[in-house]
This record gives sequence, C-alpha cells and structure tokens, in this order.
Amino acid sequence: MDERYDIAIIGSGPAGLSAALNAKIRKKKFIIFGSKEISTKLTRAEKINNYLGFYGKSGAEIRDEFMNHLKAMDISITEERINNIYSMGEHFALMANEKMYEATSVILATGVNFGKPFKGEEKLLGKGVGYCATCDAPLYKNKVVTIIAYQKKEEAEANFLATIASKVYYIPMYKEEVEVDPAIEVINDTLVEIVGDDRVNKLILKNQEIETDGVFILRESVSPGQLVPGLKMDGNHVEVDRKMATNLDGCFAAGDIVGVPYQYIKSAGEGNIAALSAVAYVDQQKMK
Amino acid sequence: MDERYDIAIIGSGPAGLSAALNAKIRKKKFIIFGSKEISTKLTRAEKINNYLGFYGKSGAEIRDEFMNHLKAMDISITEERINNIYSMGEHFALMANEKMYEATSVILATGVNFGKPFKGEEKLLGKGVGYCATCDAPLYKNKVVTIIAYQKKEEAEANFLATIASKVYYIPMYKEEVEVDPAIEVINDTLVEIVGDDRVNKLILKNQEIETDGVFILRESVSPGQLVPGLKMDGNHVEVDRKMATNLDGCFAAGDIVGVPYQYIKSAGEGNIAALSAVAYVDQQKMK
Repeated sequence: MDERYDIAIIGSGPAGLSAALNAKIRKKKFIIFGSKEISTKLTRAEKINNYLGFYGKSGAEIRDEFMNHLKAMDISITEERINNIYSMGEHFALMANEKMYEATSVILATGVNFGKPFKGEEKLLGKGVGYCATCDAPLYKNKVVTIIAYQKKEEAEANFLATIASKVYYIPMYKEEVEVDPAIEVINDTLVEIVGDDRVNKLILKNQEIETDGVFILRESVSPGQLVPGLKMDGNHVEVDRKMATNLDGCFAAGDIVGVPYQYIKSAGEGNIAALSAVAYVDQQKMK
Repeated sequence: MDERYDIAIIGSGPAGLSAALNAKIRKKKFIIFGSKEISTKLTRAEKINNYLGFYGKSGAEIRDEFMNHLKAMDISITEERINNIYSMGEHFALMANEKMYEATSVILATGVNFGKPFKGEEKLLGKGVGYCATCDAPLYKNKVVTIIAYQKKEEAEANFLATIASKVYYIPMYKEEVEVDPAIEVINDTLVEIVGDDRVNKLILKNQEIETDGVFILRESVSPGQLVPGLKMDGNHVEVDRKMATNLDGCFAAGDIVGVPYQYIKSAGEGNIAALSAVAYVDQQKMK
C-alpha cells in the first residue's frame, strides 16, 4: 500500500483533468486515475465550438492541448482501473486490480460511459457476475468464464484468466482487431441476458446461448453506485450540491457523472470547483 | 424599442461569453451586453494556469483567444450599460441608458465588481443617489452633481451632465489620466459617506466635504439586487440551482455573481449551463 494521498481523482476526461490542475496548483498530494489517452469520447468528437477559447478544433486537437497542458505542469495519469471505493471515515480506500490506494478525499469524474445493466446483471452481481477479472480469477479455477470487453486493453485480463479457468469465452464490444491467447474462444455476438437462479449458469446472446460459471463485464467505467457504496444518486447521476459535494464527507463529483449538459467546458468548470472543495476539505481535516 | 430577443446576456466575462457561444450554436436570437474589451479583470491577470487547455498564458493572451473565438463565430458585444431589468411575466424589460430592450430570458453574468455600498448609499438611493447619470440628468438642471467614476469611459457621462447641471464634481476611481470638460471640477479624493436626511446634501470625503444635490456612483457593474428587483440573493451572491436558474422564471445567472470559486473555467462552465437552460426555457415558452 502506498502512502495516503490528499486527493484521488477518478477519471481523465475534462472534469478530472481540470481537477488535477487545481490540485497541483494548490500543492496537494494527489493522484489521477484514467487513461493516458485521456478520453476516447473526446477523441471521437468531430468539432467542438463551445469550449471558450478554442474555435473550430476537433476533439483530437483539443485532447492534444489538454495533454500539452498536463505535460507542462508535470501531471501524469495513473493507468489503473479503480473497482471500488470505500469510505473509511477519515479516509477512502480505493481498490485497484492489484493494489489498494488511500486518499483523504475523492473526486469522481468517470463520466457516463457505464451503460445500462444487462438483464440479470444486477440480480446476479457477486453470484457469478463481476467487474474485475484479476480480482476474482481464483474463484474460477477449472471453471468456464466469459468476458464481455468494451476496450481492447481487456485482452490482457482474458489472457490472465485463461491460465486459471478451464475455458474462457471472450465477447469483444470494440471495433479493433482481437488478439488473444489461442485457447480463448472469441465470440462475435451481443449479450441479451444473464441467466441463473442462485448463480450464473448461462448467457443468452443474440444468436446463441453459452453455458458459463461466471461473466466479467469490463466496461469503460463502473457505475457510480457500484463504485462507491452508499453514494446518493439522483436517477442515473450522482447527487451533488453547488460545491460538487456528494452525500459522503470528502467525496466530490464533477462532469457528466453529475448530470446534463454533457459538455466539455461544463465538466472542466465543475472539475475546478470539485478540486477547490476537496482542497478545503483536506485542509480542514489536517486542522483536526 | 427593438424586437424581442430570446436571450439577453448581461456581462462579457468568461461566463457571458461562454453563454453567448451556446446561444449562437443553438441558433437563438440573443444579445450580449458588455465591453468590447471583454473584461478588465481578465486583462489584468498575470498568468492563468488552471484554464484547461491553456498553459502559461497571461490574462491578456487568454482574452485575445476569447476575442478570436467570438470573431470566428460572428458574435459581437453591445456596449451598453443595463441599469435595470424588470420581470414582466412573459418577458423581461432591460433598461439601458437611452433605450429599452426586451428578452424572453436573461442571463446575469456581471461578476462581482460592484463593491460594497458606501455609507448612506442605500438609505439615499433614489433620493439623490443614482447609478445612471444620463437617465436622471434632467432632475439636476441647474443643480450641483457629483460623479464617482470607476472607469474612464464615464467621462462622457460627466461631460453630458455638465451641459445641464450648474456644477459637476468628478471623482475618478481609476488610474488613467482624466480628460473632462474644463467646467468640471476633478477631485482626487475618496468618498467616505453620503449625507442627507430626505435627500442628499453633502459628501464626506477623506480630506474634505462637498455640498451636492446628487451623486452618481458609476461602478463597473450594478449589484444584482439593484439590477433585478425581486432577485433572491444568498449573501452577496445570486442564489441559483444546479441549472443556474434564479428564483425568477426565465432569469439565469453564471460566473462570479453566483459565488466562489472566482475562476475563469468555472465561470465558462456555468455560462454553458445557463445558456442551455435558457434555450430550454425559451423553447418551452414558444410551445405555449
């Protein structure tokens, strides 16, 4: 376990990056989790004309400006997926695939890429449905496991699982070419329903059914309610006040995750507020 | 009187400009009041490092980027001071120095440059204390009037008043050289108190006292409560919800005016939200 951070920022879209700039300027010990590529959604945007100061730039060009800004301020992004965040009273425990981080405050900026749950997913969560293959791999020794992967990087998870499970099915939800261990069976199909009574036993896909003991759904981000137990939601969004504070002391949120409009400048503005609120919270905690 | 605008934006700092971009993109009929120089406060900022996408730029450089953005989108700023905004039910009436504008919705983005009221100011408002010299000039025919001016451009107001009043005192609160009609007496001093029972009769300055029938206090912006009668405040700030809606239907606010942190990116983000809320409001009104 690392030493404790003042602020942990989850997400590297405009909200998370803007928060990071402010954490840096305010000289806090912080860490930002996300992708070094920043945001695939941003990269895909054709033209953005309402980010004040940038006219006629593509999402990719704006992404480059953001990367230059981070580089100039010597901020680097930690490429690690945070699967769970637990409020421990004085601090938060952040569970990554292979380690744990601690932080006094947390800023959630994971966007809204978590999608709707599949039929059966919520009912069977923890009963064969999981979100972290590496964490739960030992449970599937000599069993059949399926991975639903939304990003190419999950191939590594599949390869690892293949060394433990007796059989791994891999259902890619991305467009890039799939390159996995030949022992893994790649299925190009779409999940419709996860079936099981006490535990998962079958997946119904659009064109076929497969028997499986477990299924890992590896989305771009985990839904906030799953990520942080006890977090108060407002529909699909995290409920925050105007300081971007959630119902959990020390836990702030910013960007698409807290609601519409889904706009880059709105997210960046909220990231700024969330960071300064977190700074104030951390300073208060230190005075105690 | 002009035709009615969908959206009137008051203020040309980052919040107002960001709102304008969105009003334009959403094809609304809008007008933005402010200074073609955008924001003196912004221009004075030395280095701004937490506006995501810009690193190491001065306030003036960022101001130039903003101006380029406006120009590229063919948005121009109307240089007119709005002195009062009245909610008329279906629309708002905006009183400028010499004309009236109408708009279905209003976005307040005037910042926090209005300062604290002087001693006696609130008590004698409308009884010799005023904020619009041009509007009230006829009341001071052959009388003594004093102008407290926070910007060089107010010299024009003083010159105009000098053609009507018997005597004009001019107290500049800015650093630039004062160039007014020789008939005007320039006093380099600071106002301490406005004195009078039923009406203003005297000003106490730091180093002297002057007798006057009226005093115009021409600040960079009017305080929101004075600007929009009935507007609900939260201390010195306009109270808004997360949609940037004030207590008055169709009236939104964004930027420093709604509270800390006073940061450009926060203001720009809020301007985006306020504009999209105003667009939704205008669309609703049209459906009625």
